[in-house]
Amino acid sequence: MKSPFQNIGIVARPDTPNIQDTARALIDFLLGKGLTVYLDEAAAEEQSVYPEDVPRCCVASKTDLGKNCDLVVVLGGDGTFLSAAREVAPRAVPVIGINQGRLGFLTQISRENMAEGLTPVLEGQYLPEERILLEVFLMRDGEECGRSLALNDTVLSRGGAGQMIEFEVFINGQFVYTQRSDGLIVSTPTGSTAYSLAAGGPILQPGLRIFTLVPICPQSMTNRPIAVADTSEIEILVTKSGDARVHFDGQLFLDIQNFDRIRIRRYHNPLRVLHPNDYQYFKTLRQKLHWGEQLI
Amino acid sequence: MKSPFQNIGIVARPDTPNIQDTARALIDFLLGKGLTVYLDEAAAEEQSVYPEDVPRCCVASKTDLGKNCDLVVVLGGDGTFLSAAREVAPRAVPVIGINQGRLGFLTQISRENMAEGLTPVLEGQYLPEERILLEVFLMRDGEECGRSLALNDTVLSRGGAGQMIEFEVFINGQFVYTQRSDGLIVSTPTGSTAYSLAAGGPILQPGLRIFTLVPICPQSMTNRPIAVADTSEIEILVTKSGDARVHFDGQLFLDIQNFDRIRIRRYHNPLRVLHPNDYQYFKTLRQKLHWGEQLI
Amino acid sequence: MKSPFQNIGIVARPDTPNIQDTARALIDFLLGKGLTVYLDEAAAEEQSVYPEDVPRCCVASKTDLGKNCDLVVVLGGDGTFLSAAREVAPRAVPVIGINQGRLGFLTQISRENMAEGLTPVLEGQYLPEERILLEVFLMRDGEECGRSLALNDTVLSRGGAGQMIEFEVFINGQFVYTQRSDGLIVSTPTGSTAYSLAAGGPILQPGLRIFTLVPICPQSMTNRPIAVADTSEIEILVTKSGDARVHFDGQLFLDIQNFDRIRIRRYHNPLRVLHPNDYQYFKTLRQKLHWGEQLI
Amino acid sequence: MKSPFQNIGIVARPDTPNIQDTARALIDFLLGKGLTVYLDEAAAEEQSVYPEDVPRCCVASKTDLGKNCDLVVVLGGDGTFLSAAREVAPRAVPVIGINQGRLGFLTQISRENMAEGLTPVLEGQYLPEERILLEVFLMRDGEECGRSLALNDTVLSRGGAGQMIEFEVFINGQFVYTQRSDGLIVSTPTGSTAYSLAAGGPILQPGLRIFTLVPICPQSMTNRPIAVADTSEIEILVTKSGDARVHFDGQLFLDIQNFDRIRIRRYHNPLRVLHPNDYQYFKTLRQKLHWGEQLI
Repeated sequence: MKSPFQNIGIVARPDTPNIQDTARALIDFLLGKGLTVYLDEAAAEEQSVYPEDVPRCCVASKTDLGKNCDLVVVLGGDGTFLSAAREVAPRAVPVIGINQGRLGFLTQISRENMAEGLTPVLEGQYLPEERILLEVFLMRDGEECGRSLALNDTVLSRGGAGQMIEFEVFINGQFVYTQRSDGLIVSTPTGSTAYSLAAGGPILQPGLRIFTLVPICPQSMTNRPIAVADTSEIEILVTKSGDARVHFDGQLFLDIQNFDRIRIRRYHNPLRVLHPNDYQYFKTLRQKLHWGEQLI
Repeated sequence: MKSPFQNIGIVARPDTPNIQDTARALIDFLLGKGLTVYLDEAAAEEQSVYPEDVPRCCVASKTDLGKNCDLVVVLGGDGTFLSAAREVAPRAVPVIGINQGRLGFLTQISRENMAEGLTPVLEGQYLPEERILLEVFLMRDGEECGRSLALNDTVLSRGGAGQMIEFEVFINGQFVYTQRSDGLIVSTPTGSTAYSLAAGGPILQPGLRIFTLVPICPQSMTNRPIAVADTSEIEILVTKSGDARVHFDGQLFLDIQNFDRIRIRRYHNPLRVLHPNDYQYFKTLRQKLHWGEQLI
Repeated sequence: MKSPFQNIGIVARPDTPNIQDTARALIDFLLGKGLTVYLDEAAAEEQSVYPEDVPRCCVASKTDLGKNCDLVVVLGGDGTFLSAAREVAPRAVPVIGINQGRLGFLTQISRENMAEGLTPVLEGQYLPEERILLEVFLMRDGEECGRSLALNDTVLSRGGAGQMIEFEVFINGQFVYTQRSDGLIVSTPTGSTAYSLAAGGPILQPGLRIFTLVPICPQSMTNRPIAVADTSEIEILVTKSGDARVHFDGQLFLDIQNFDRIRIRRYHNPLRVLHPNDYQYFKTLRQKLHWGEQLI
Repeated sequence: MKSPFQNIGIVARPDTPNIQDTARALIDFLLGKGLTVYLDEAAAEEQSVYPEDVPRCCVASKTDLGKNCDLVVVLGGDGTFLSAAREVAPRAVPVIGINQGRLGFLTQISRENMAEGLTPVLEGQYLPEERILLEVFLMRDGEECGRSLALNDTVLSRGGAGQMIEFEVFINGQFVYTQRSDGLIVSTPTGSTAYSLAAGGPILQPGLRIFTLVPICPQSMTNRPIAVADTSEIEILVTKSGDARVHFDGQLFLDIQNFDRIRIRRYHNPLRVLHPNDYQYFKTLRQKLHWGEQLI
């Protein structure tokens, strides 16, 4: 059977013992299927994964991965997946994740079952899902001074000084509230089981077209998580910034100054995530949250 | 200016001192505009609001209100609004609320400003909003043995015996979890600021097409509010019912037996709610939750 | 070695398969040690545990158990332990629990290790611990119309009508607040890992001399769990009772009427609980709450 | 009437407009009563509060305040009170607070009613209360490398890197749990209405002899606030510190390295706080938390 995917990118988690073996096995598997492989240069370099003179196997930057591939396979945990997602989302390339031992929300196929898990996907048997991303602009004195995408969340957060920060929130230009707190999480459905959950936010079914605004330790006890449509433009005006930063997926950040404005909206491209055909979101959730078990 | 509304229904909160005066003032106001008035028979009877021989003013059942009117005005609090909403939603008649002194989420116009508030609305100047309702079926031994609509929420809840109940939840036929708790709230965005909020649920922007499942005092600490698409069919299989009931908007209920199934989906008609042109949801929220004020 | 305990009471969980075998094994074990056994008459009757003509083994009411024994062994779960505790607390008899398979907060010795677990205890090797109980008086029109002890908690709770109740709370005669909610839990440290935990209350180290007042789904978002000294006299004046009840350890209850007053104070006798010498509270907690495991 | 207090220290909040006037009025009031005044040198310097040649009025360091005074009056908010408290607690001098306009938990007398509020206190009419403090030692490689007192709380907290930290908690040498979170608050009853409350901790009646351990956004959903006796020695071993710090009352901090141990115990001296005779803790709480008002 002919695969709908011919050019496959591979992104691997850096600094991970044994991931080299998994990467090689994956390359061999894909080459064996007659497919062309593009290896993320970071992974290639660090791990000298493969000799240079293998046909149909080349090294590429993440940008070129996005340009040349029609599927990107991520080897690693949810963290590796997040960073790959921000890179390939602009190119609308679908992504699938292979975990390194521990079930992830975004990486359902295990390393051990890599071949069995990927084979049907490469033959076109998979569940596609669209995940929204956030596009965030940091505005200072009316000028954009930074921007980023985020698949999980954008987090305005105090730094090490230990003082609460203060800010005003606007949705579509309408004033919502002034808040004094450790910060504010703006989360996608994908991010709802990450930091947002630790801060008391609700779990959002993955396909929902909504964001949540989840306050972190708000001083006022009536501040609660709020869900808004993903067509909303959210603006946070930081009025007492202290040493605050804005973080993207907990992996990138920008420093904040007083009166900076953080503008957050849905990114125009959703991320296409592929799942094995037997994927069930609530099953993953049940396993990760130990819902099957009796606690107290 | 000709009003887009010619036949106006009036529903008034029963057993409320002075509401008779408000109702009469409203009738006079509407008749003065040349409109026809249908007075809910419950209100009419209980409060002998109006003599019988006034032209263009008649008494009608709530069903007939829905059939004959192109606008229903609710006098009372959010509770009166909820019960009127369940009655008129099948007829797709728009509804507007007038509170009796205390700002409501659904009743923004105050009694004092009734004329000023309603005049632009009757002239076609208003903000329309669609609110989803829940349609709930109680299934026993494979047969439907009860059903109801709900604008706020459907609540499965233990009764007075003081024992937790147990149930399984399915979304679109997929098993979600087994839960042991005081119960489960399935809330619309409209209900998200009612009982759901007291049980720890998030605030949902009114127009969102989602439901939340909010556990009430769950024994397992990993059970959290979940938001799902309003296209979902939710099924609750009650495995240890005790003296549980299922409640609709806190106003109607059905008794539950072991192995009853509660099926919940979005009702096909949304409720059309009209707001004054200067309505802002977050302003109402700010006032109701005292967000403007510094608590601690 | 001579045991500090000569007369041992046995209380067994009713309606439990196989508990008869455990009870007989326990009786034989105790008789074999030369001790005298008093079997709770409920257990004796229901399970025909033992022939009548065994020397040093007799059947007794719970009151007589308390009077005649210097140690009571509870076979069952935390529920059986709670009900035995309320009975023997007035007699200041120490209690030790043997669980039927699942580790309990109050029943640490497993059925399988009954002999190994009890032997050192009978020889005087154990960790004694004092647990406070609540003594609760229900006052109506100035008269006491009901009273009970509680080892876990006293819970004022709405019934099946589904309406929130309203009440005022006083501590040592000082007004604390008016609350509208599903109810209020007054919990001992022992009860802090039971219903209180599900309602959002803190965990209290067992020996603390405090109570917590934990609101159940309070309408006001600023109502929070409060810890007070166990020398406090707590009074709850129920102003809108609906179909409320006051529950004791989730096992007994009294119906509430409007303007009833519930008075709660520490019972003069603490319960003496014996633990195996290797008992560590936080270890039990860790096991019950899965703290050892990584959730998300 | 002779005052039980002859030497009165004054500590004033720095950088506060108009506090100079309040300070002068207070000095005049105290001198007029024939008392001796010691003015905290920070306040004296910054605000040139008073000419040098007034008899019975001198400037002193905070240490000397503690040594020479039998009462310290704090002008400012709860923050000024906290920092004064840590300074004078070792000398066991009683403290009373005067707020600058907004009721504080620790500063009940308002500037406007300063004379009326202080007069009975100076005549011996007051409610004394003992508040426990934390004494904290930072241990590195077996050596103490920092220490502080805290009246509200000791907070281990991640810094600006945005990564959760990891640590183990021991109580009296017994292992409690490993936690991954934004940090951990160890709070006194005094601190229970401060940062602890924002992080979900319970309210503790002021006189209780307990601490609470309140996790900040813990990754595991089963981590909850725990209350322990103030005779406990709490040790936190930081296993993944990132850029963590330990903060004292949100006013002082120490940087943390991997494998640092933070040891926390009750300070041997409690703080003696004086209140006006009509002081009621729950009344203050009600006002600060708006318990009197209906929120939603």
